[in-house]
Amino acid sequence: MRTSIATVSLSGSLTEKLDAAARAGFDGVEIFENDLLASPLTPEDVRARCADLGLRIDLYQPMRDIEAVPEAEFARNLRRARHKFELMRRLGADTVLVCSSVSPQAVDDDALAAEQLSRLADAARESGVRVAYEALAWGRHVSTYDHAWRIVEAAGHPALGTCLDSFHILSRGTGTDGIADIPGEKIFFLQLADAPLLAMDVLQWSRHYRCFPGQGGFDVAGLVRRVLATGYDGPLSLEVFNDVFRQAEAGPTAVDARRSLLLLQEELGEVPLPGPVVPTGVAFAELVTPDAEPLAALLGALGFTRTARHRGKPVALWEQGDARILVNTGPAVRRDGTRLAAIGLESPDPATAARRAEALLAPVLPRRRSPGDAPLDAVAAPDGTELFFCAAGRPERPGWRADFEDTGRPPGQAGVQCIDHLALTQPWHHFDEAALFHRGVLGLHAQGSVDVADPYGLLRSRAVTSPGGSVRIALTVGAAPTDDTVHAQHIALATDDVVAAARRFRDAGGSPLPVPANYYDDLAARFELADGELETYRDLGILYDRDAHGVFRHCYTRTVGRVFFELVQRDGGYRGYGAANAPVRLAAQHAVRALTGG
Amino acid sequence: MRTSIATVSLSGSLTEKLDAAARAGFDGVEIFENDLLASPLTPEDVRARCADLGLRIDLYQPMRDIEAVPEAEFARNLRRARHKFELMRRLGADTVLVCSSVSPQAVDDDALAAEQLSRLADAARESGVRVAYEALAWGRHVSTYDHAWRIVEAAGHPALGTCLDSFHILSRGTGTDGIADIPGEKIFFLQLADAPLLAMDVLQWSRHYRCFPGQGGFDVAGLVRRVLATGYDGPLSLEVFNDVFRQAEAGPTAVDARRSLLLLQEELGEVPLPGPVVPTGVAFAELVTPDAEPLAALLGALGFTRTARHRGKPVALWEQGDARILVNTGPAVRRDGTRLAAIGLESPDPATAARRAEALLAPVLPRRRSPGDAPLDAVAAPDGTELFFCAAGRPERPGWRADFEDTGRPPGQAGVQCIDHLALTQPWHHFDEAALFHRGVLGLHAQGSVDVADPYGLLRSRAVTSPGGSVRIALTVGAAPTDDTVHAQHIALATDDVVAAARRFRDAGGSPLPVPANYYDDLAARFELADGELETYRDLGILYDRDAHGVFRHCYTRTVGRVFFELVQRDGGYRGYGAANAPVRLAAQHAVRALTGG
Repeated sequence: MRTSIATVSLSGSLTEKLDAAARAGFDGVEIFENDLLASPLTPEDVRARCADLGLRIDLYQPMRDIEAVPEAEFARNLRRARHKFELMRRLGADTVLVCSSVSPQAVDDDALAAEQLSRLADAARESGVRVAYEALAWGRHVSTYDHAWRIVEAAGHPALGTCLDSFHILSRGTGTDGIADIPGEKIFFLQLADAPLLAMDVLQWSRHYRCFPGQGGFDVAGLVRRVLATGYDGPLSLEVFNDVFRQAEAGPTAVDARRSLLLLQEELGEVPLPGPVVPTGVAFAELVTPDAEPLAALLGALGFTRTARHRGKPVALWEQGDARILVNTGPAVRRDGTRLAAIGLESPDPATAARRAEALLAPVLPRRRSPGDAPLDAVAAPDGTELFFCAAGRPERPGWRADFEDTGRPPGQAGVQCIDHLALTQPWHHFDEAALFHRGVLGLHAQGSVDVADPYGLLRSRAVTSPGGSVRIALTVGAAPTDDTVHAQHIALATDDVVAAARRFRDAGGSPLPVPANYYDDLAARFELADGELETYRDLGILYDRDAHGVFRHCYTRTVGRVFFELVQRDGGYRGYGAANAPVRLAAQHAVRALTGG
Repeated sequence: MRTSIATVSLSGSLTEKLDAAARAGFDGVEIFENDLLASPLTPEDVRARCADLGLRIDLYQPMRDIEAVPEAEFARNLRRARHKFELMRRLGADTVLVCSSVSPQAVDDDALAAEQLSRLADAARESGVRVAYEALAWGRHVSTYDHAWRIVEAAGHPALGTCLDSFHILSRGTGTDGIADIPGEKIFFLQLADAPLLAMDVLQWSRHYRCFPGQGGFDVAGLVRRVLATGYDGPLSLEVFNDVFRQAEAGPTAVDARRSLLLLQEELGEVPLPGPVVPTGVAFAELVTPDAEPLAALLGALGFTRTARHRGKPVALWEQGDARILVNTGPAVRRDGTRLAAIGLESPDPATAARRAEALLAPVLPRRRSPGDAPLDAVAAPDGTELFFCAAGRPERPGWRADFEDTGRPPGQAGVQCIDHLALTQPWHHFDEAALFHRGVLGLHAQGSVDVADPYGLLRSRAVTSPGGSVRIALTVGAAPTDDTVHAQHIALATDDVVAAARRFRDAGGSPLPVPANYYDDLAARFELADGELETYRDLGILYDRDAHGVFRHCYTRTVGRVFFELVQRDGGYRGYGAANAPVRLAAQHAVRALTGG
């Protein structure tokens, strides 16, 4: 089954788009007319370039406002079409997309539409071209796929077929049963796009908010299954109009696009991939820093002890309960200071997990080995975070620990049990990709997206979790592309007594993030807390939230570089991440930053 | 008539918001609860700060999900409310906003709602607070203003009134006749917001896309007129949730907000402003540059001659027909290189034009005088462009020309007649402000906004024009905040023979922007052009467009610094700016930039 992508889905010049599509492994492209018009390459150049890249030109698109118009207008349209058929001959493209007319001149006359489309197909056939007629969801008289098919059927022309587009069909909520009535050989093309479920004007929705399959709310796989059942054997082709993708680098977008199709094909049983291996826990979080001292002080105050050091690299292991933090001061440290660089994921089958990631186009990282190192399978997430797959099931001494030499100190015991969750700020242009990656590659479950009001803009946050909650990652994105580095990464540490843990932290010299007194006045208004409870929270900077399941109490440390820590206590099955308190936390962090210039 | 603004309309900390509101001249603020909760200031601090700034706290908001709930739930709500009334006492705020409930627990029972709101008002009165009940457009059972008023009327409590909000009323298309039924003294508050006319879910529309009056599609003035007719004498208060304003600097947003209210008040006859003085032409465009040579070469090739030099500053005047370009190499030149810094607007009454601009909060620029300089009234537009108001009506020697000494060379005569339009890239966060400024301050007419596909993102463009078209400014904004400086400014020069002008430019050594051959193949498909016409356009890099009125032909020069020129010929009343060709032009400019690294 071949895969294709419309050039309009990618950013940049036509050359950049073709290169990105080929590098991501697509078999073909749809060439969007404006991309060709704006290119200095001749059609012959484009044809040669595609051939060099191993790309077929599956579709030239679109031709608009052709059919069901007065004869004089149709004659002009046919003249225009003949020019385009000649252009397609030069390009080596044999299928043209004709969208149902939105012209005010078009009349509601299926017989006229069929007759004119038939004459268009005559002209196309002379140039070796076939015409794929598609119903735009906002077409003037033809706006549903079954209507478009009735016209194609009535025309009965061998060079005229229909094009199905998942957005146009699913955005209108048209049932897909009628697809079975179309013979597969008359479906000349299949365009795929997903979209978030928005209640808005369908034209605006289509032009600005489409996304790749699996990133929105449509059952794209269900539709494709019906189309394949007709015998359709053309490409699966992505046609996504999206304001963000238009700005993003073409290379990563093309990889994201192709990954979404691979996952779709897997769901359809069309492409065998190594099955998902859901991680069972967080083996470690690795921080890199140019200066270990501030982190050492912070981890010490949180109750961690330095239990081991790496045999061959400047990496220290800090432990408490099942929480393990690596502090790396090695040469990989970049100028952006202290940050969360890697996550070790406990995996029942690291090799298969890595093979799946690789099959889904995640960059495989060279195994970082020095004499004596255990080889670890690792890939890069879309935000650049390194994901290590660590053998689980031998908790007494997991493989990666073999590289470390004990210091003789036991793990800390200040109430931290494990890593509750990790929060990672994502590159602005790749937020949807990140969620799909964690879901598709790692087999995590993606929760809904929530808006969080930062004083300087709205953030969005979306959590991905393993079934039991042993792995939880909160993906966050800033309000604008420029925000990529403003918002910090953080490590949330689980405790069953956050009050004690916060007190120990403060007594050990830790600086909690200060929380405004007004917040506690509001808590008193909203909840009836036990005597003294509020005062304790106020004293220790502990925040409080409730959902339908339980209670969440949490507090924050100051930030080192881009990283800070959170102590969290979940009771009664609370499922969230304290999003209701995030605006207060963000404002407090901005206030600290304004004071310290940090 | 007092003016107020909700803190949620502005970006930053509460302190920053209050400062910005006061500096822009607002009389009061609505304090949004989350802004207070996240602030380190105590309520007493906030009260004192507002007093220092001359701001009244007109409203505390919002209280949610209060009414028409089971008694136990209402008891909890009342407890919460009492806390907030105490807080308001500390703040010195006497009116609280209660939004109609969206709680799944609320029942559809107006009598119960009235009874509970009455009890809430009892509690409020004890703290000297009054309750303004407002229908949210998406309220569970109460979603229209007349329904909210019926409940308030039924309650018949002196401390309970209603709050009207233009967004909630106009977004639902509810008729505004019913406002006359509400006694003015029972309208406790009036919130104003405009919004673009979008067909989308009203909650999303409200939370993300509101804008200031005059920037959207609602008849906000008509609504206010009806409210004032009731005898309402409270403030006009802006409550605008907008994703862009959340990120923008608070200071300029507050000025934009206040300007919108001033224009609204002027429309209502409530505030006398110096009347608009519509400019009648472009006296000059001023470019600043660190190096005059590249511009001199470009202007020379375009057929301009250097006709005069300033008596006291390093400024040269280049002329051709009625097109006048100043080239300034003086100390005001900043490091961002060659750019369009100022526009001279011919004005029938420069002094009044400047007084109106000042009254509408445009920064008045110091009159730049050196010995012998004619004083010129000037203000800064939101993008920083300086606007000079020049006396018109004495075309033989306008006032500003008196500062220039003739070189003895006559103006060029290569076919350029005047400046057709100026195109200015706007700061991303202030695009709506720019359109309102040019409309409200200068009296220009704002056309609709169009999307333009740049290879690296979607731009938006909107033209503002004088009635006869003698002044036309195209305001453009990039796809993202980072794009502010990517896209150039340009000066379009009118000619009645673009072919001759383009040929002269090339023969004089000018470099036209190269246009891809594919563009001309498409022209041949779309239009039946006369013999040889297409070849001429292809040869000279001329682009072609048609609208319902006429034909537009235009071509571009290469870019110097941030500035380029366009030669344009309008025939038959063509009204646009060649937006259909902009994607090709932008792609060509990116290609040149990629080659030259410029």
